[in-house]
Amino acid sequence: MEKFTITQKERIGELNGTTEMMEMEFETIENRDSSFREMEKSMVKESRTKIKELLHEKYMTKTVEVGRNLEQWLMGEGFTKVVTPTIITKQMLAQMTIDEYHKLSEQVFWLDNKKCLRPMLAPNLYVVMRELKRITNEPVKIFELGSCFRKESQGAQHMNEFTMLNCVELAYVKDGQQLDELKRLAHAAMKRLGVPEEEYELVVEESTVYGSTVDIEINGMEVASGSYGPIFLIVSGECLIPG
Amino acid sequence: MEKFTITQKERIGELNGTTEMMEMEFETIENRDSSFREMEKSMVKESRTKIKELLHEKYMTKTVEVGRNLEQWLMGEGFTKVVTPTIITKQMLAQMTIDEYHKLSEQVFWLDNKKCLRPMLAPNLYVVMRELKRITNEPVKIFELGSCFRKESQGAQHMNEFTMLNCVELAYVKDGQQLDELKRLAHAAMKRLGVPEEEYELVVEESTVYGSTVDIEINGMEVASGSYGPIFLIVSGECLIPG
Repeated sequence: MEKFTITQKERIGELNGTTEMMEMEFETIENRDSSFREMEKSMVKESRTKIKELLHEKYMTKTVEVGRNLEQWLMGEGFTKVVTPTIITKQMLAQMTIDEYHKLSEQVFWLDNKKCLRPMLAPNLYVVMRELKRITNEPVKIFELGSCFRKESQGAQHMNEFTMLNCVELAYVKDGQQLDELKRLAHAAMKRLGVPEEEYELVVEESTVYGSTVDIEINGMEVASGSYGPIFLIVSGECLIPG
Repeated sequence: MEKFTITQKERIGELNGTTEMMEMEFETIENRDSSFREMEKSMVKESRTKIKELLHEKYMTKTVEVGRNLEQWLMGEGFTKVVTPTIITKQMLAQMTIDEYHKLSEQVFWLDNKKCLRPMLAPNLYVVMRELKRITNEPVKIFELGSCFRKESQGAQHMNEFTMLNCVELAYVKDGQQLDELKRLAHAAMKRLGVPEEEYELVVEESTVYGSTVDIEINGMEVASGSYGPIFLIVSGECLIPG
């Protein structure tokens, strides 16, 4: 049986083909190559149609649409959208326990000895949260949707820049109810995105000391993660926006 | 006459006080200091009220609101929102004539020999534009709203990271009408933002060889700039989002 060449597979990938398409098998090389030409032609056509739809009907990509949708939902939940700096300090990372011995530190883009591109939104959100709590005694709920940067070594499937959504809440829920609140938020986010309950799974890991985490998994892949701490009563969730 | 101390001025700045407030004069140091305490108290109070309004009524800062407003307007004008990488190559900058001898090059944040943080959106937009024109013969109008990075040496008033809006159009307007189209877009943007015509000025510089530029100025400060080229028929505008 003949499989696609590396070049053919790459082209199928470029045109948003699936893994199943890439792994197809053929009886002869001639069969394979003529099938490839047919597939390429129809995928190029489909891609042109989508581009036209984007430029003349939708005016925004799916990624932008998903981001806006989640933003609207969070504002409806009482979260305020904040925008924080892309460049953060070494000290801010260290406060999140990411020092030079931490696994993530190898993936950080450094601008100089002290400054780097944020690998996650949390360091800034904690600063904003602290400042806000200093000046108000009322509930504080904030979120950010923005680019984060990590040097990825896992090949072409991973990008150095990705969009992250992180929401943080100084939750006014009673002790023992934080987990329910996290689950409620997770289900509400998926519902808002139109993902039916049978297509994802909530994976809960409880810990009496460090609080619990709730991950949202689709086919075993973690697409979002939430956690709460019993000390700071912070409920926090972050998720990757599908590209 | 006594003026505010540097520390007092800085504090007034932090609390969003105006230049006029900072330059106030007093007969005695006692007068000055008691006025400062009064001003500080009332500004802190105002700031707390605004934060509460933000957290419990508006859910987005003025900057976010202005950005969304302009995005909505541009999509209504038929522009598609694109999102491009923050990290770009030296080569892409060079194609925009920004080589090591260009004034702007000193302000670029480099990650390594070849990669830097984008100092403007144009290099990416030209790549997207070229790709889109390769696959469609229909009009192409795109825009991006995103962070750009420049090392600024002009003190605390300038930030290293700022939000830029850039729209590019392969304009289907007749030769000789590009300037009118640019002016129309400039006026429409200001109207959308609620800035009355008497508060800004369009400054036009015409050139028969390189196309013309239209700047929007408020009190002599350029807040947006548009230009078109006679060869590529590109109408492009960029503006800073007020923070």
